[in-house]
Amino acid sequence: MIKNRPASFTDFYELTMAQGYFLAGRHREPSSFDYFFRKLPFKGGYVVFAGLTDFLTYLKEFKFHDDELRYLESLGFTKEFLGFIRDFEFKGSIFSVKEGEIVFPNEPVLRVEGTLIEAQIIETLLLNIINFKSLIATKAARVRYSAGNRTVLDFGLRRAQGFGGLQASTASIIGGFDGTSNVYAGLVDGVNVSGTMAHSWIQSFPDELTAFRKYADFYPDACVLLVDTYNTLKSGVPNAIRVGKELEAKGHKLRAIRLDSGDLSYLSKNARAMLDAAGLGYVKIAASNQLDEYLIKSLVDQDAKIDIFGVGTKLVTAYDDPALDGVYKLGTIDGRPTLKISENIEKITLPGLKKITRFYNEDGSFYADGVSLHSEEKSEWIEHPLFPNKKVNISHLKAENIQHKVVDSGAVIKPLSSLAESAAYAQSRLQLLNPEHKRFDNPHVYKVGVSPALNQLKQTLIKSNIH
Amino acid sequence: MIKNRPASFTDFYELTMAQGYFLAGRHREPSSFDYFFRKLPFKGGYVVFAGLTDFLTYLKEFKFHDDELRYLESLGFTKEFLGFIRDFEFKGSIFSVKEGEIVFPNEPVLRVEGTLIEAQIIETLLLNIINFKSLIATKAARVRYSAGNRTVLDFGLRRAQGFGGLQASTASIIGGFDGTSNVYAGLVDGVNVSGTMAHSWIQSFPDELTAFRKYADFYPDACVLLVDTYNTLKSGVPNAIRVGKELEAKGHKLRAIRLDSGDLSYLSKNARAMLDAAGLGYVKIAASNQLDEYLIKSLVDQDAKIDIFGVGTKLVTAYDDPALDGVYKLGTIDGRPTLKISENIEKITLPGLKKITRFYNEDGSFYADGVSLHSEEKSEWIEHPLFPNKKVNISHLKAENIQHKVVDSGAVIKPLSSLAESAAYAQSRLQLLNPEHKRFDNPHVYKVGVSPALNQLKQTLIKSNIH
Repeated sequence: MIKNRPASFTDFYELTMAQGYFLAGRHREPSSFDYFFRKLPFKGGYVVFAGLTDFLTYLKEFKFHDDELRYLESLGFTKEFLGFIRDFEFKGSIFSVKEGEIVFPNEPVLRVEGTLIEAQIIETLLLNIINFKSLIATKAARVRYSAGNRTVLDFGLRRAQGFGGLQASTASIIGGFDGTSNVYAGLVDGVNVSGTMAHSWIQSFPDELTAFRKYADFYPDACVLLVDTYNTLKSGVPNAIRVGKELEAKGHKLRAIRLDSGDLSYLSKNARAMLDAAGLGYVKIAASNQLDEYLIKSLVDQDAKIDIFGVGTKLVTAYDDPALDGVYKLGTIDGRPTLKISENIEKITLPGLKKITRFYNEDGSFYADGVSLHSEEKSEWIEHPLFPNKKVNISHLKAENIQHKVVDSGAVIKPLSSLAESAAYAQSRLQLLNPEHKRFDNPHVYKVGVSPALNQLKQTLIKSNIH
Repeated sequence: MIKNRPASFTDFYELTMAQGYFLAGRHREPSSFDYFFRKLPFKGGYVVFAGLTDFLTYLKEFKFHDDELRYLESLGFTKEFLGFIRDFEFKGSIFSVKEGEIVFPNEPVLRVEGTLIEAQIIETLLLNIINFKSLIATKAARVRYSAGNRTVLDFGLRRAQGFGGLQASTASIIGGFDGTSNVYAGLVDGVNVSGTMAHSWIQSFPDELTAFRKYADFYPDACVLLVDTYNTLKSGVPNAIRVGKELEAKGHKLRAIRLDSGDLSYLSKNARAMLDAAGLGYVKIAASNQLDEYLIKSLVDQDAKIDIFGVGTKLVTAYDDPALDGVYKLGTIDGRPTLKISENIEKITLPGLKKITRFYNEDGSFYADGVSLHSEEKSEWIEHPLFPNKKVNISHLKAENIQHKVVDSGAVIKPLSSLAESAAYAQSRLQLLNPEHKRFDNPHVYKVGVSPALNQLKQTLIKSNIH
C-alpha cells in the first residue's frame, strides 16, 4: 500500500534548506518554530486540536532509509550532507497543548525547539498531520453538538481523500463520534466498528423479504435492515417489521432499520409510528445520506425520529471547508526573536518564545486566552494583537498555562494520549466553552490577546526590519 | 506510518455481507458490479479517470493477514468464514476505461465480474482510490487548462488531507502537472520534485541579501529566491537582482524569483520590468498563494508575468468540491440483470452487463457516449436515459469501444499505465474534447445516451420490482 517513509513525507525545500544550513555550518544553531492557524474553519467559533499523538508516533520513525538516501543522492545532494542526515534523529523539544484542547486563531499551540535543521525538516509532516486531524476533529465536534446524545457514526471511507480516510476516522472519534465503518481504524486504533448491509445485499436476493430474513438468520442480535431499496414505507418498513416480529418469536431483537434516501424527517416519523404500532418500540432508526451538522440540526429541530446518524463524505472531507490553514513559523534563531513581516499586517508573526494562558470566568467557563513571552510574569491585561488600545484586564481571573512540554531532547516524556482519553478531554473542554462560541451562525468571537511586552517586542522588531 | 493492510481498508458491512453470502452458500455465485459517478465536480464538463493503476496494484496485495483474521475473530466472525477468507485472492475480471480517459456521469466506466463475495469485498478500496484520484486529476486538468503552457507545480502536501497527500501528488501529474514539492511522490513514483526556500530561510539570516547570497553560493544553478519576506519590490526584487548579477559574473544564471503574497499581477509586472531592465530577462517568475484555476485564468487574462504557478491547498483538497460521488452498484447476479430502484428517479441504476461506445465527429472530436448492453450490436440511435424521446442518430458516426478487459481471472493482462503514459493519454484525449465542454462557466453538457435495448430492459425491471 504505502511505504513507511515519514522523512520523505515532506516538501523538497525542507531538504534544500537543510543542506544549505549544513553547508553554512549552521546545523547546530538553536531555533524555535511555532505552529498556529489563522482562520477558524466552517465559519465556526473554535478548533479541536488533534494529531499530536500521531505526529509524535511518526516522529519516532522519522529517519532516512537507504532508498531515501540513494534517491536524494540522485537529486544532487552532497555526500557530506547525506552522511549527516543518515544519522538524523529528532533530539529537540516540543511544547504543546493537549490533544483534544479547544484552541483559537493566532495562538502558538505547539512549539518546536531544536537545531535549525531538525526543527525545520519536520515541518511538512507536522503541518500535514495536525492540520488535517484538527480539521476533522473540529467537524466531528460540530456534528456531535447538533446530534446531542444520539449516536453518530463515521461512514466516510469510500469518499475520503485517499489514505486520508484512515486518519479521518480516528480524528472523528476525538471530536466525539461513537464509531466508524472503517475496519482499518478498528484494526490499528481500536475504534468501534459497525455496519451491516448495502443495497447490493437486498438486490442479490430474489426479493427484499428474503434478503432481510437471511440477514436476520445470520445476525439475529446485530441486525440493522436497510429499508429503501424499493420503497421505504410500502415495502422496506413492512418487511422489516415482519422480520422483527419473527426475530422476537425466536427470542431476539431487531436492532434497527436504516433510511438512506428520501425525506428523512418524514420517513423517520412514519417508520417510527409503524414500528411502535407493531410493538417494536425498541427498534432504533438509523439515517444516512449526505448528512452534516446543519442537516442533523434541522432533523433534530423537526423532531425527526432518528436515533443513529451515519455521517460520511461531509465529515471525512470537511466538505464545506476542506483545509485548516495552519502554518509553522520561525520564532527565535540562535536565541534572538524573529518575525515574518508581510504586506498583509494580519500575517505578521509573533516573535520569541511564547506561552499560552487560559483565563476562566468565575463559573469555570473559558473567558479568554493570552499569548505572552515565556519569560514574563502574569501581566495585568492582554491587548488586541493589532489594536493595542483594545484591552481587557485579566489580573483577577483564574489563569492556567495550557501548553506543556511533551518531548524533551527527543524523548516523549509522558504517555501519548489514547483516542478515548483525547475524546473525553475534548468533550470536557467543550463543556467549558460557552454556547455563544459553539453556535453555527455567526458565533461570538473568543478573545485571544497578547501581553503588552510581546506586542512591544513585535513592534520593535517590525521597525528594525523596515528600512 | 501506516500498515500495509488493503483488505482492512474497507467498510465493515462489506465483511458482514461477505460472511452472510458465505453462510448462505452463495459465495461462488457470479455477479457483476459497475463503478460510475453521477455528478460532475467543480460544475465542470468532464472527469479525468484516474486511480486504476493504484487500485490494481493494491488489489494484488489484497489478502487477510493473521492480525486481521484475529481482529475479525474478536468481532465475532465465524471460524468457517475466517478459514474461507484466509485464502482470499481476487480471481475475478475487471473491465475499465484507460487511466487518463475523459469520462462523464452515469456511464459505467469500470466493471468488476466475479463471485459475489470477491466483487463485493473490494468495493470500498476501489471507491476510495478511484473517487479521489479522479477528483484530483480532474482538478489538475482544469488548472493545466487555465495555465496554458506555463509550468504548474503541486505545493499542497502541508494542507493535504493526511496521507491522501501522497495520492494527490501523483493524481495531479495525471491531470497535467509538471512536478511536485512532495518528496515521497518522487521517491516512490518517480515524479519530478522541486522547491527551494521558505521564509524561515530568509528570517534565519541577519538580512535578506545575506540569505539570498548564501543560497546562491550553495545552489548556483538551481536558485529560486523568495522575495516577499520583507517588501517585495523595495527589498526582495532588488536583492534578487543583485544576487542574479553576482551569479552571472561567476558564470551561472539565477533561475527564478518567487512571489508568495500581495497582488500577483501587479507585483509580477513590476518585478518583470525590474529584472528585464537589469538584463535578467531569462530569470523566470514563479507565483504561489492560494491559487486555483480561476485565479490563474484571471492572472493570465491580466497578462501577469508569471512563468511558473505553485498550486497547493486548492488542488490537493479539490477545495471547492472535495469529493467525487462515485458509486459501485450491482448490475447482474447469477446471470440475471438487476437494478436499484430509488425514490429519486435519477438514481435508478442501469441493469445488466454493459459497454461504453464513444462516437466521434468528422473532425475527430468527441460527439457523444453511448451505454448499451454488452451483447448488443451497434444501435441506430442513443436515447436520453430519462426521456427516451430525446434521441440522436449515431449510425453514421465513427465509434470506439472505450472499455477494455484489464484483469482476467485475477491476473492483470497488460502492463499498468505509468504516470507519464496516463498523463500523456489524458492530454491527448482532452485535445479531442471540444472547448465548450472545458470552459469553467456553465460548460456545454456532453451527451451520454443509452441504447433503446438497455432502456427497455431497465423499464421492464422497474415494472417487475414495483408492486
